[in-house]
Amino acid sequence: MTTKFLLDESRIPTHWYNLQADLPEPLPAVLNPATHEPVTPADLEPLFPASLIEQEVTTEREVPIPEPVREVYRQWRPAPLYRAHALEKALGTPARIYYKYEGVSPAGSHKPNSAIPQAFFNHEAGIRRLTTETGAGQWGTSLSYAGALMDMDVQVFQVRVSYNQKPYRRAVMETYGARCIASPSNETEFGRSVLADTPDHTGSLGIAISEAVELAAQDPGTKYALGSVLNHVLLHQTVIGQETMEQMAMAGDSPDVIVGCTGGGSNFAGFAFPFIGQSLRGGESPRVVAVEPSSCPTLTRGQYAYDYGDTAKMTPLTRMHTLGSGFTPPGFHAGGLRYHGMAPLVSHAKQLGLFEAVAYPQKACFEAGILFARNEGIVPAPEANHAVRGAIDEAIRCREEGSAETILFNLCGHGHFDMAAYTSYFAGELSDHEYSDEELAMALSGLPSV
Amino acid sequence: MTTKFLLDESRIPTHWYNLQADLPEPLPAVLNPATHEPVTPADLEPLFPASLIEQEVTTEREVPIPEPVREVYRQWRPAPLYRAHALEKALGTPARIYYKYEGVSPAGSHKPNSAIPQAFFNHEAGIRRLTTETGAGQWGTSLSYAGALMDMDVQVFQVRVSYNQKPYRRAVMETYGARCIASPSNETEFGRSVLADTPDHTGSLGIAISEAVELAAQDPGTKYALGSVLNHVLLHQTVIGQETMEQMAMAGDSPDVIVGCTGGGSNFAGFAFPFIGQSLRGGESPRVVAVEPSSCPTLTRGQYAYDYGDTAKMTPLTRMHTLGSGFTPPGFHAGGLRYHGMAPLVSHAKQLGLFEAVAYPQKACFEAGILFARNEGIVPAPEANHAVRGAIDEAIRCREEGSAETILFNLCGHGHFDMAAYTSYFAGELSDHEYSDEELAMALSGLPSV
Repeated sequence: MTTKFLLDESRIPTHWYNLQADLPEPLPAVLNPATHEPVTPADLEPLFPASLIEQEVTTEREVPIPEPVREVYRQWRPAPLYRAHALEKALGTPARIYYKYEGVSPAGSHKPNSAIPQAFFNHEAGIRRLTTETGAGQWGTSLSYAGALMDMDVQVFQVRVSYNQKPYRRAVMETYGARCIASPSNETEFGRSVLADTPDHTGSLGIAISEAVELAAQDPGTKYALGSVLNHVLLHQTVIGQETMEQMAMAGDSPDVIVGCTGGGSNFAGFAFPFIGQSLRGGESPRVVAVEPSSCPTLTRGQYAYDYGDTAKMTPLTRMHTLGSGFTPPGFHAGGLRYHGMAPLVSHAKQLGLFEAVAYPQKACFEAGILFARNEGIVPAPEANHAVRGAIDEAIRCREEGSAETILFNLCGHGHFDMAAYTSYFAGELSDHEYSDEELAMALSGLPSV
Repeated sequence: MTTKFLLDESRIPTHWYNLQADLPEPLPAVLNPATHEPVTPADLEPLFPASLIEQEVTTEREVPIPEPVREVYRQWRPAPLYRAHALEKALGTPARIYYKYEGVSPAGSHKPNSAIPQAFFNHEAGIRRLTTETGAGQWGTSLSYAGALMDMDVQVFQVRVSYNQKPYRRAVMETYGARCIASPSNETEFGRSVLADTPDHTGSLGIAISEAVELAAQDPGTKYALGSVLNHVLLHQTVIGQETMEQMAMAGDSPDVIVGCTGGGSNFAGFAFPFIGQSLRGGESPRVVAVEPSSCPTLTRGQYAYDYGDTAKMTPLTRMHTLGSGFTPPGFHAGGLRYHGMAPLVSHAKQLGLFEAVAYPQKACFEAGILFARNEGIVPAPEANHAVRGAIDEAIRCREEGSAETILFNLCGHGHFDMAAYTSYFAGELSDHEYSDEELAMALSGLPSV
């Protein structure tokens, strides 16, 4: 039995929800890496248009969604909410399980929720070109899609090892008309300096960020776009949670537990923040659980400290849960969710005790995703498998406790682009990596003293 | 601007539409390959359950869709209809272009429309296992998905060369719990005989069909499932066209031209037959255009004759447009649509002059798909690119004629699983192949004399 809760498209949210308005304590300042003084909007102007900088710093509860952005959202939004009857039955749980499904976007994930407005606000500011970095390619794909629809040139620096290993993602970006360049490249000073030193360098996200930022900073017609971490990116994603709240009301149910996966934090925040805000304003207070990979355990084993956003230490310093900007996740990790830090707003909410966090090894997550696919018919992205694992474990707890709770999770994308990870799983090629305390301490020893 | 026409899920059709009820001349008989006498339902019983055989031969106009099948359809149906405003603008055409989008299914294409009922009717008949063949993997994926939801074992014989070259498709099938076997295999007598002769045989669709059929015929608990060509498969796909008719009414518009792509014929028939039936019953009569690859030009250059459905000449003889069962499309052709024959019902409708057919080389189709993606945001499957090309060329004709016609096409699937084909296109590795008359005549010289 399929129970799908679909909102009419007139119900696409008209505003993004800003958790900052409801926080009991304000977000710690972002610091200039040279002076350690709080950054000013002017510091950010070489990289972002004024409208997005305003969204980055505003504490207004509601930020209006421009009508042209809602128009594009209408291509796939409101996204469906499903009741997972078959999964419940397979688990023999008394719990009711619901999932919001963001894989219906043309890019197959939640990422366009922010790529579209970022392209829109840049275009409105007269910017003609966006630069960004991408690892596996999910964000690069989404920004390329947004660029095609919003008539912007997009230049994506893709980590060279992914560029070589994952030509299909690049093909998607090129189909959308974006330029995808292997990083380190000869197109930036920083890229050339890396290549001069190590001609066969396989690249890193840190280097790719540095190249994308360098290009944007040089040319007034070019800005930089980031797919997670920043406040305005999290803000854009709150369409997910807002729709879900209305759909849960349609279902005549309300969640006891909310589960999302975390990498940089954008899908988790977009899904959970509207619920956390409701709770902070005195409404219903479900438990909120963030699930992260135990091979990159930012929230569960990281330190809450000021750190750089990139490996090259060029970005402002933000207070966040971090494993140290020099942290490198294990060489072969199938999913995304590999960022060394965590969105400052997510980190702050964690510090305030507004949600819990758990970490899972990747094989247990693939196992959960496969059980989900066989019962619910959708093959989740490897990242989304972490949320599936978290939801299933909550449902198993309900079974053991005989507790008929309502579990709600976000399925942030489908796995159609990522079947190589499943192939590796079935071939027994994936391994789980748990860092020792010593290893983590070593990566953290390089934190800047602020 | 996005204009999406979404039906409420109560509007999922309650019946499949059977074109046979409205045809001015009945479909020619299917012949037993040994006796050349018409086949009886009993001849088909080793392979299909009675309910599907009944659907294969019925001339009733409406065949009820069982409620459990509609329940599964609800996971993604009704599928959206879009107005392609951005594409219209890019083409500078006065035409209005609409497209139905079947890529929203969990398998990414229209194929589950038939996979789900085939699994359901087999399950209802007490069958525990389905066998099938697959080339690139679109149908194998869909039947595996259906098997997972309907609690059936699925065994897919995948042409060995695809099995080796496309491990991701296999991973999808395995994620759904299906067994995917490289064909020729050691699991059937026929497979063993092929391997005994040629140990490194790369396989063919014909061999894979023979293996799947052999396994089904041997075991009373196992039946065979086919993803196109047969009447009951086309029947199941008519949910596409029925929904589209209602959505066009929502849009307050009606098509002057309808475009679909043809391989075996199932997505074309499912989309176009409800419109053709309406026309045959005295209603509106849009032009209907079938688009096929010029490298496998069944409808445009094939012969309308009795032929075998498989290369091994084991299947019944059907009257259809065929290039000869020995015809082999060029070694590297990126899309699907490679079947040597055409669905008998589609062929018969063509013979009756109920639609037109055109053929396009594959590079022109990729070019069209890329233009579509950059304007409409969805990356089409290589097969679907043929329909996109056909629709774009109709829109260009409208521009040249200054004619504000309404063009409607079926976008039968997304290309997320098939980005390797785009990679080849961008790398300049695709070539167009046009057969000479002599080459085609040679393939046709082997037609059985009936």
